[in-house]
Amino acid sequence: MKHTLVILVEDKPGVLNRVASLFRRRAYNIESLTVGHTHVEGLSRMTIVVDGDEFSIERLTSYLYKLVNVIQVEDLCEKPSVSRDLALIKVHTTSENRAEVIQMADVFRARVVDVTAHSLIIEVTGDEEKINGLVEILKPLGIIEMVRTGSVAMARGSEALISIGVDGKVFETMEVA
Amino acid sequence: MKHTLVILVEDKPGVLNRVASLFRRRAYNIESLTVGHTHVEGLSRMTIVVDGDEFSIERLTSYLYKLVNVIQVEDLCEKPSVSRDLALIKVHTTSENRAEVIQMADVFRARVVDVTAHSLIIEVTGDEEKINGLVEILKPLGIIEMVRTGSVAMARGSEALISIGVDGKVFETMEVA
Repeated sequence: MKHTLVILVEDKPGVLNRVASLFRRRAYNIESLTVGHTHVEGLSRMTIVVDGDEFSIERLTSYLYKLVNVIQVEDLCEKPSVSRDLALIKVHTTSENRAEVIQMADVFRARVVDVTAHSLIIEVTGDEEKINGLVEILKPLGIIEMVRTGSVAMARGSEALISIGVDGKVFETMEVA
Repeated sequence: MKHTLVILVEDKPGVLNRVASLFRRRAYNIESLTVGHTHVEGLSRMTIVVDGDEFSIERLTSYLYKLVNVIQVEDLCEKPSVSRDLALIKVHTTSENRAEVIQMADVFRARVVDVTAHSLIIEVTGDEEKINGLVEILKPLGIIEMVRTGSVAMARGSEALISIGVDGKVFETMEVA
């Protein structure tokens, strides 16, 4: 089963390396990984989609907590959540089919971000299945290149999975009333 | 100067670990990193934003080429390109200011993907500055949590930075006519 782990880390050199080494050493298979800044300076947030049963993910969580610079680890599969992935797809078009491609993009609420005589770049966000769906439709036209970010995820509701105070301190999960 | 490197890799265990180790060992500072599938099975594409002068980036490129499973490395700063970042921002709202927050999101062409009595989750895509702009505006309201993917990038125009044939073979840069 796929699990989405959200990992809050200090923004220090080597932290990505340590996390990646752990997954490699323990033979966990990473489906997707993203790292990005949070709204607090010095803290980054990783979203890692990893395959494994309940037990192996629990063990992985405990390994992660042992790493330097890892502050908090949460498994998002236990709660309702929003998961998003971003893709840029450059697709081959002709003057005949351009309107059709733009229409398809519209159906997927995607945006056209670049046009040339022979190509379009489409920007699309959504969960993994939605993006896979658009890719399948565009494939027969000829995809020139594509890049995807991998998933980022967040629990639904007003609760913060990871709460960071204004001073950068991290609190346990709390309800904002 | 910030450089955006696009790295095409084989989707094998340990490749992320090797790339992350290289950056750590050679003391390059990663600003952002994403890994995702391409439209060809078995091939992944990394986008890494890294700080450095022309010379150090050229050296980095040659180091990367030496790694197992690294197929192609391109520096996108040399050509016009599209760069996108995705963020999910959970922001504290009240019944009084909810309409205002939604209006702000509209201005940034962002989408509201979850609503509760006390919060909204906003999904926004754009280049780094645009997302930073929205974050600055939302900060006074109280950001509960935020997650960002880091940048993905692609050269403008109909040329493929990295061309993959239908059989999964990789060609040198080619013009699709």
